[in-house]
Amino acid sequence: MEARNADLRALIRTIPDFPKPGIQFRDITTLLLDARGFASSVERLASGLGTTPDLIAGIEARGFVFAAALAQRLGTGLLLIRKGGKLPGATIAEDYALEYGTDRLAMHVDACAPGATVHLVDDLIATGGSALAAVRLIRRAGAELAGASFVIDLPSLGGAERVRSEGVEIRALLSFPGH
Amino acid sequence: MEARNADLRALIRTIPDFPKPGIQFRDITTLLLDARGFASSVERLASGLGTTPDLIAGIEARGFVFAAALAQRLGTGLLLIRKGGKLPGATIAEDYALEYGTDRLAMHVDACAPGATVHLVDDLIATGGSALAAVRLIRRAGAELAGASFVIDLPSLGGAERVRSEGVEIRALLSFPGH
Repeated sequence: MEARNADLRALIRTIPDFPKPGIQFRDITTLLLDARGFASSVERLASGLGTTPDLIAGIEARGFVFAAALAQRLGTGLLLIRKGGKLPGATIAEDYALEYGTDRLAMHVDACAPGATVHLVDDLIATGGSALAAVRLIRRAGAELAGASFVIDLPSLGGAERVRSEGVEIRALLSFPGH
Repeated sequence: MEARNADLRALIRTIPDFPKPGIQFRDITTLLLDARGFASSVERLASGLGTTPDLIAGIEARGFVFAAALAQRLGTGLLLIRKGGKLPGATIAEDYALEYGTDRLAMHVDACAPGATVHLVDDLIATGGSALAAVRLIRRAGAELAGASFVIDLPSLGGAERVRSEGVEIRALLSFPGH
């Protein structure tokens, strides 16, 4: 797995002390700028899926990038899970804890038909707060969560384990130690 | 053109009085949820390009959706133009006027090689403030702006004309009268 992903890893830039001291920020913008790297990451996300779902769901904002590209690659529709207050129609919302305070994710209440299969995509899973909020939204809407894919997992922060414990099948293309 | 775009137009939902009274909000989330509509919109964005550019640039956040899907469709890299404070590396930034106050867009200063060709994508052009800020950023970085594509133009707000007057070739898949 490491050999197969070696080029993706090399395309991700690490920025120390962003957004605050002590955090090693994994910057995917350098991967996106590389045509072969971006195409390869989307291809690897696609190849990890079994049955093609009805919808790919992406979490605002970087998750939109990989979710939209994957939906385009697979020929599916795309479901946007946005920060609170951004969607114009009737929504359902879930709050989740940040280090200080809370944040909110929302989706349109009529975004998916009951029983539709939805695969969740985001660029990175850390503590899993936003991913778990998205999982809850998709299930509250009556859809079947078919799994979740991330480009990067930070396993020391435990998010992937938390989401798995909710019965969600998770994959990540790359794993980085530390924070 | 209207016949060709009739199905895209029908997939866009209009929400009255969002985000404030008097605004008819053109909601593209219903288009994205429709697999054929989403694929068709990306195909039409692609077919309007002459030479394939080096990079597709998308403006946060809805612009990321169409830009990422178009970059995936064309096999190019993707340049993210984000709200101020979001990018972790060294950036250049441009402020633009809102109805009340200003907003800021930024891009990584090293995001594109001088002379690289960049095609700008966003979901909608209204007054053109954010599109003009993105145009200035791409040109300040030394890249060649190869054009700009939007899914929706609101011509009564004059943004497309403003961007054209900066020498940028613009296309939009759909045009809606009024605001």
